[in-house]
Amino acid sequence: ENRGRILINCPDQPGIVAAVSDFLYSQGANIIESNQYSTNPSGGTFFIRVEFECPNLKEKERSISKDFTEVANKFSMKWKLACVSEIKKIAIFVSKELHCLQELLWEWQSGDLITDISLVISNHEAARVTVEALNIPFYYIPASKENRLHAESEQLKILAENNIDLIVLARYMQILTPSFVKTYENQIINIHHSFLPAFIGAKPYEQAYKRGVKLIGATSHYVTNDLDEGPIIEQDIMRVDHRDKIENLKKIGASIERSVLATAIKWHLEDRIIVHGNKTIVFS
Amino acid sequence: ENRGRILINCPDQPGIVAAVSDFLYSQGANIIESNQYSTNPSGGTFFIRVEFECPNLKEKERSISKDFTEVANKFSMKWKLACVSEIKKIAIFVSKELHCLQELLWEWQSGDLITDISLVISNHEAARVTVEALNIPFYYIPASKENRLHAESEQLKILAENNIDLIVLARYMQILTPSFVKTYENQIINIHHSFLPAFIGAKPYEQAYKRGVKLIGATSHYVTNDLDEGPIIEQDIMRVDHRDKIENLKKIGASIERSVLATAIKWHLEDRIIVHGNKTIVFS
Amino acid sequence: ENRGRILINCPDQPGIVAAVSDFLYSQGANIIESNQYSTNPSGGTFFIRVEFECPNLKEKERSISKDFTEVANKFSMKWKLACVSEIKKIAIFVSKELHCLQELLWEWQSGDLITDISLVISNHEAARVTVEALNIPFYYIPASKENRLHAESEQLKILAENNIDLIVLARYMQILTPSFVKTYENQIINIHHSFLPAFIGAKPYEQAYKRGVKLIGATSHYVTNDLDEGPIIEQDIMRVDHRDKIENLKKIGASIERSVLATAIKWHLEDRIIVHGNKTIVFS
Amino acid sequence: ENRGRILINCPDQPGIVAAVSDFLYSQGANIIESNQYSTNPSGGTFFIRVEFECPNLKEKERSISKDFTEVANKFSMKWKLACVSEIKKIAIFVSKELHCLQELLWEWQSGDLITDISLVISNHEAARVTVEALNIPFYYIPASKENRLHAESEQLKILAENNIDLIVLARYMQILTPSFVKTYENQIINIHHSFLPAFIGAKPYEQAYKRGVKLIGATSHYVTNDLDEGPIIEQDIMRVDHRDKIENLKKIGASIERSVLATAIKWHLEDRIIVHGNKTIVFS
Repeated sequence: ENRGRILINCPDQPGIVAAVSDFLYSQGANIIESNQYSTNPSGGTFFIRVEFECPNLKEKERSISKDFTEVANKFSMKWKLACVSEIKKIAIFVSKELHCLQELLWEWQSGDLITDISLVISNHEAARVTVEALNIPFYYIPASKENRLHAESEQLKILAENNIDLIVLARYMQILTPSFVKTYENQIINIHHSFLPAFIGAKPYEQAYKRGVKLIGATSHYVTNDLDEGPIIEQDIMRVDHRDKIENLKKIGASIERSVLATAIKWHLEDRIIVHGNKTIVFS
Repeated sequence: ENRGRILINCPDQPGIVAAVSDFLYSQGANIIESNQYSTNPSGGTFFIRVEFECPNLKEKERSISKDFTEVANKFSMKWKLACVSEIKKIAIFVSKELHCLQELLWEWQSGDLITDISLVISNHEAARVTVEALNIPFYYIPASKENRLHAESEQLKILAENNIDLIVLARYMQILTPSFVKTYENQIINIHHSFLPAFIGAKPYEQAYKRGVKLIGATSHYVTNDLDEGPIIEQDIMRVDHRDKIENLKKIGASIERSVLATAIKWHLEDRIIVHGNKTIVFS
Repeated sequence: ENRGRILINCPDQPGIVAAVSDFLYSQGANIIESNQYSTNPSGGTFFIRVEFECPNLKEKERSISKDFTEVANKFSMKWKLACVSEIKKIAIFVSKELHCLQELLWEWQSGDLITDISLVISNHEAARVTVEALNIPFYYIPASKENRLHAESEQLKILAENNIDLIVLARYMQILTPSFVKTYENQIINIHHSFLPAFIGAKPYEQAYKRGVKLIGATSHYVTNDLDEGPIIEQDIMRVDHRDKIENLKKIGASIERSVLATAIKWHLEDRIIVHGNKTIVFS
Repeated sequence: ENRGRILINCPDQPGIVAAVSDFLYSQGANIIESNQYSTNPSGGTFFIRVEFECPNLKEKERSISKDFTEVANKFSMKWKLACVSEIKKIAIFVSKELHCLQELLWEWQSGDLITDISLVISNHEAARVTVEALNIPFYYIPASKENRLHAESEQLKILAENNIDLIVLARYMQILTPSFVKTYENQIINIHHSFLPAFIGAKPYEQAYKRGVKLIGATSHYVTNDLDEGPIIEQDIMRVDHRDKIENLKKIGASIERSVLATAIKWHLEDRIIVHGNKTIVFS
């Protein structure tokens, strides 16, 4: 189809919206959806996401990009043009807990998650049957603190060969090295099983149980080199009470994790997220 | 200050955003926030709300309006320009239940509700002390099925004399005549104490209790001549259970009513709502 | 295991709790959880659910039941004793929309739904592959307004042969006859795809779209002969806005339906629901 | 009236419920509501709250207490008997932010908060007019790190003279000394303006803004000597997004603080909370 999206950020100043919309109009495009945000009209950063219809977009993509460079330079823009018809490729990393993987596979099957799940990588065999039943390649790559570099070089090779656009850590219980993270900057989404920044690190449900909280949560975020400190994309919570043992917190938490991760991935796939420093701007 | 807002709806076609943003740029305005929606890019209706900063807006308001007519005509726009600095005047109608009135007064005092509460009209004396303590004029106008026309003529006179922009029915338990409603089309906001369209009409909490629902709600909407059938602005709910008697449902409901009504009014005051047929488009 | 549950309702009067807890103590049982409710301490109806541990419960079940009759008679109790180890058998009825069925199968596989899914009955073939892959018998029984009685007689035969305890209508789009409903009184749980009593009947998402509501919901209830009027077990809602077309409302609604139905079934399986007139008491 | 409540905790063993309900029956009491919880049926701690009606409770209170001692000793119970008609006395501590105080005053006036607000203590004059308008004594006691002991001795004197049952820190921005806290163990409720344990300490909204969270919350808890580490009573959250500046987070947060604090106080006044270690059991 002919649907495209353009994401821009640049120093705020008058005339940006006019320049962008003039450009699109001159290309014969009709703006379908447009969202913008400025950290500060004087001296701040301006962000805009425009979704548009443009006849023959695919054929014209290259020339549009070339022509837009002039506008972009004038306003010192960082920008990105995406054709909606070019489906993004994702790789899912998983360990032994499969509920997040299963939610994604399910939503993908039912057409709610429009992506190409190119492959699944795991440091356990637990997911193999489920994944291969859907004809998705499954790679078992043992990973631990000891063989991290070796495992990652194997993973990176597979990711590169498959032109992966987004890596989803669907309860993958290994830490990634800075070099891996850098290769896929703002392209790795993790689900942390707590309402960050509460309960950073290991065993958050155990921590939550011990603290006696009345709500538990989950957080999806882009991965950076600071554990659980990356830009937050989405969070949600559910109510618990004194009767809920750790086992129960995990079950309740699992359903939050499923929906929070799926939501974050959808927003990423629809180019709705702009990372700005350690925060996200989400045009949902 | 120099903040302005323009609300537009017109048949959708390419070039609208470009035309509007070019116009604003030519007037020296910087777009701060922009929201748009189209019921259908081919043949549908297009809606846009733009908030902008424009030096000397107040002085230039008239000339901007005049100049914009050309753009508006070209695209067959219905439109409205508002200066943020021109505070809207509201009249609150209330009967005996005062919680919604009190919430509005409170938010107004604390600076959360930026408006001019010009006057309160009631068919009971219950609110007088509270209202007059804040130096807001209070009008006691007995109203019932029998004297409706007489009461309304008195009310309309007061509203006109005070240049009221918005009438808030904060649990006002009288039905308004079609002629009254027509005078203030899309300028009367009511709070209905149920999750519409469930429990239309009288005694919704009694109805909810009888039906044994597990959630109760409240709905704010513009008033039309069909009882409780006007365009919905906002709704919310809270959880109840078998232990909650009618008295309790009313208490729980009161807190939903307070927040739902306050939210709807804020959106109206910030020109975030466009009525389209029997629905609202809310650029929140 | 030795876990049991007793559910009682009777006219309220002093001494009921003492009598029940004395009885359980005399049987060597330890009370684990106890919930009670009275519609009115003077002249109302009293409800209690007690969960207890009792050594050798299975062997003693019959004698306990016999012995309890004396207590029960004294207070004119309606009551029911259940051994937790006797897993309830459920039959799932489904048509073409499979999301509710899939949620139940999934939760059952992951151990969250402790039941015996004995069989699935459908008036379409759509679910066959999914169901049979899990070695659950699938019965295709064409059903429509015309052949209703014939289809039901076939269904009833299968249900009886399999000693089904609970029938789940997981988006089964056929109306059941009064005679069928009577056979399984308070043993049929339906999911209605709206926040009842709003949008009773067919095409609730279409109705919701037309009305322009800001929240959509789902309701699980026991089936009675009044369409969508049976005792409500659980309800939930999600927020929508003017951008959501009917297709979207359905997708969002599907996820509410899934969780609301699963919750209702769990409560039923754990004997947490008492039907009282057209309402439910849920000891959750 | 004749409504009473008994709260008990003791080592779990069979027969406790029977013993308590037998006792109440023997006193002519009718059990209205009963909640229980056991950390572990074998070797755990058992908690029960019973609300009952007993003719002439007030006259018999002393003799009931005396008679119950025998039961209590048999099961090594810690227990407490409360007559509902003996309204609890509360003292509210506040600094400059008044929204929590105002919510409490409002709910108290409207009959939702059944208590005796005996007095308000503040280290600022900001609340005086509001408080004195309701004929509640207002004490201005300057308090800071420097004069803490002196201020507290003055506060403690006033609290003792007024037989205060519960101290509410309604955004009181001073830390209390261990000695003060000990005097009112489990009788001081604080509202912390974040979703604990996230953002402990000062300026939580600033911290939340910096971290870019998508939900903000509030937490009510009993005060202990570990700052913001006391047993949590209630928590709630609201959704925010990238557009919300710190000022907005504070406004949104204020409404959560109001409802979370009011809920916690109601539960305390109705004897629904049992503190167990660093957690609360809430029979809501």
